Amino acid sequence: MKQQIPLNEIEGGVTAAQGFVTGGLYCGIRKAKKDLGIIYSETPASVAGVFTLNKTQAAPILVCKSQLKKSHICSAVVVNSGNANACTGERGLNDAWTMVKATAKALNIPDEQVMVSSTGVIGQYLPIEKITTGIEELAGKLSRTGNGDAAEAIMTTDTFPKQVAVKFTLGHSVVTVGGMAKGSGMIAPNMATMLAFVTTDVAIGQPLLQKALALANNRSFNRITVDGDMSTNDMALIMANGKAQNTAFTEDSEEFKLFCAALEYVMIKLAKMIARDGEGATKLIEVVVKGAHSEDEAAKAASAVANSNLVKTAIHGADANWGRILAAVGYSGIDFNPDDVEISFNELPVLKRNYEIVLDEEKAKHALSQENIVVIINLNLGNQSARFWTCDLTKEYVHINASYRS
Amino acid sequence: MKQQIPLNEIEGGVTAAQGFVTGGLYCGIRKAKKDLGIIYSETPASVAGVFTLNKTQAAPILVCKSQLKKSHICSAVVVNSGNANACTGERGLNDAWTMVKATAKALNIPDEQVMVSSTGVIGQYLPIEKITTGIEELAGKLSRTGNGDAAEAIMTTDTFPKQVAVKFTLGHSVVTVGGMAKGSGMIAPNMATMLAFVTTDVAIGQPLLQKALALANNRSFNRITVDGDMSTNDMALIMANGKAQNTAFTEDSEEFKLFCAALEYVMIKLAKMIARDGEGATKLIEVVVKGAHSEDEAAKAASAVANSNLVKTAIHGADANWGRILAAVGYSGIDFNPDDVEISFNELPVLKRNYEIVLDEEKAKHALSQENIVVIINLNLGNQSARFWTCDLTKEYVHINASYRS
Repeated sequence: MKQQIPLNEIEGGVTAAQGFVTGGLYCGIRKAKKDLGIIYSETPASVAGVFTLNKTQAAPILVCKSQLKKSHICSAVVVNSGNANACTGERGLNDAWTMVKATAKALNIPDEQVMVSSTGVIGQYLPIEKITTGIEELAGKLSRTGNGDAAEAIMTTDTFPKQVAVKFTLGHSVVTVGGMAKGSGMIAPNMATMLAFVTTDVAIGQPLLQKALALANNRSFNRITVDGDMSTNDMALIMANGKAQNTAFTEDSEEFKLFCAALEYVMIKLAKMIARDGEGATKLIEVVVKGAHSEDEAAKAASAVANSNLVKTAIHGADANWGRILAAVGYSGIDFNPDDVEISFNELPVLKRNYEIVLDEEKAKHALSQENIVVIINLNLGNQSARFWTCDLTKEYVHINASYRS
Repeated sequence: MKQQIPLNEIEGGVTAAQGFVTGGLYCGIRKAKKDLGIIYSETPASVAGVFTLNKTQAAPILVCKSQLKKSHICSAVVVNSGNANACTGERGLNDAWTMVKATAKALNIPDEQVMVSSTGVIGQYLPIEKITTGIEELAGKLSRTGNGDAAEAIMTTDTFPKQVAVKFTLGHSVVTVGGMAKGSGMIAPNMATMLAFVTTDVAIGQPLLQKALALANNRSFNRITVDGDMSTNDMALIMANGKAQNTAFTEDSEEFKLFCAALEYVMIKLAKMIARDGEGATKLIEVVVKGAHSEDEAAKAASAVANSNLVKTAIHGADANWGRILAAVGYSGIDFNPDDVEISFNELPVLKRNYEIVLDEEKAKHALSQENIVVIINLNLGNQSARFWTCDLTKEYVHINASYRS
């Protein structure tokens, strides 16, 4: 986000915007942890979504896509954690529809206005009766202050709930964008084991809402990786209920730009929380590639570096192994000249053009011992750049994933 | 290798074929471990090579490519471990040429007949005087029985030396193909931190030799992954000195097929040793994708599965998490129908068509506790297949790579 915009970050998440209520509870899928959430808009909202590109798509993904074909209006989203309802065939599809119908019934809204989402282990059937019982109970408990419970209810191996909200002025109205997300393993670009739900009281037509979501997604959730594994369940949904009663705006207006910037801000913030909470992570790593011919090329190079197990283990060990970074850029598929590359860690230059190594091992060790690491790679080719976020690769990652199902 | 060919596996490596001598010694690069090797053919040999596709190419790669442009005749290969001579600019290039010249001088052969290779840490200059002194010493000690020392001298984080040799009849002659390899981290398709040197006494023209190497490489070293990181130094070289005095053969002859099959056998065996010796690995994993439309598509799917950190950690934990396998095939980019996929672990079916889960957790745990794991994924689309090899991802991998340079 290059332009400075007057955004105020405020407390809260999916109920920060007017007209939304939410909640989360334990319905019996996970082990004594909240596992079911609902977000409800008191006024039917415009809805837009982006979904995993994995060919193996979970039942809720198929259901949401089918819902979006029928209607661009949504009043509620129901989400469970602990079970992804993926690779579950016909029965899984029926279960996802059952969740939709149970939510619609409990909230007295049309079936077409409900979206459904699941996250957790793949290849197991949902305990659907526990879930429908949970939905009935939860529907009566939704509130403006339920956002913390909802953010907890969508967690799987996450170690902290992820919420953010911003307020800003749009034309003559004060509007709010807020959201929550989950995801810590199976995170890769093009959506991953991550779910994100954003709500706003902005009045905006659905085509513009979809466009804004896609743009922001491309610079946020599509720019994070934990382990390079793209999941079967990822989705980001946004609901806009118009409660702020701002005047209508078009795609070429300042208002649309402002809304996009706010959405990008919220989604990048959530994306960084996901990367920071990568399974077993101890550090958030921001990879910045600049001096590229295009943003796409910069993103490609940044992606290769952020996905490199060798880079991620080196940073874990506070080892200034810039050679692994240059090797990763080398296999990223972009065209560049290795001789021209410059690399720095947290503003400490380690490599200058023509392989001039200016690495001060002491200082580099110190820089890489921080919790937030910014790696800047200057290709010295052009003036485009891109950022990508990841985390270090640790023994704890292996520990978590060697026994996830048990 | 589908056809049955009468190959006898024999003891030895690069000196199994007639007319080759070799040796390895400690010259002072690594910490008290052998770090310099030479392979010498008493008769000038045809030479062919395949090299890393990384844009960041180490100095020895550039030198070998330049040598191959000048001449297809080679008498010696000099290799050091402990330092990759990569990202070392002009000085690195000079150092690589110095290694070539020192070897040519010590063995009294033309400079054009020497190939050079390095492996180890990136971005540090070679201790070139130690190396040239070592070359002089080593040149006087080459022998038919030096193959064990040479195989040790090219190791970095490898835990065991890797050699294999086969003998077979070609026309009226008995011929031999033998080789050695190294590599355990930074292993990815299209060559990785791996070096392989193959020698043979077959008489074969250089264009055919190059062709045979490329074919075998595509089914061996391009089908292994440890961490998905493609290195700056990878190469596979083959020298054929004609000492077996077999009659000449053409590309469409049975002899060429037989030679290709033998080379593929040797290179697959070396490739599997590299995967088994992946940094921190406790298991060799063979991923077989069958029922594909084409070998390429099968290889693409197998590659995605073999590169998945989630699959590799699950297998490490003997967890039959077939959902992660299906998810990886899903993002591999191939076209398939998830409903049709069948998966088995070591001949134990776990998933049948239409998501029929036939997983017996007890038995699966047992199957996945073996040291050799064969994962078979049947796409049920066509009749093509491909194999890919990798290892499990362990805490030890992280331990090794968090502090490689120290």
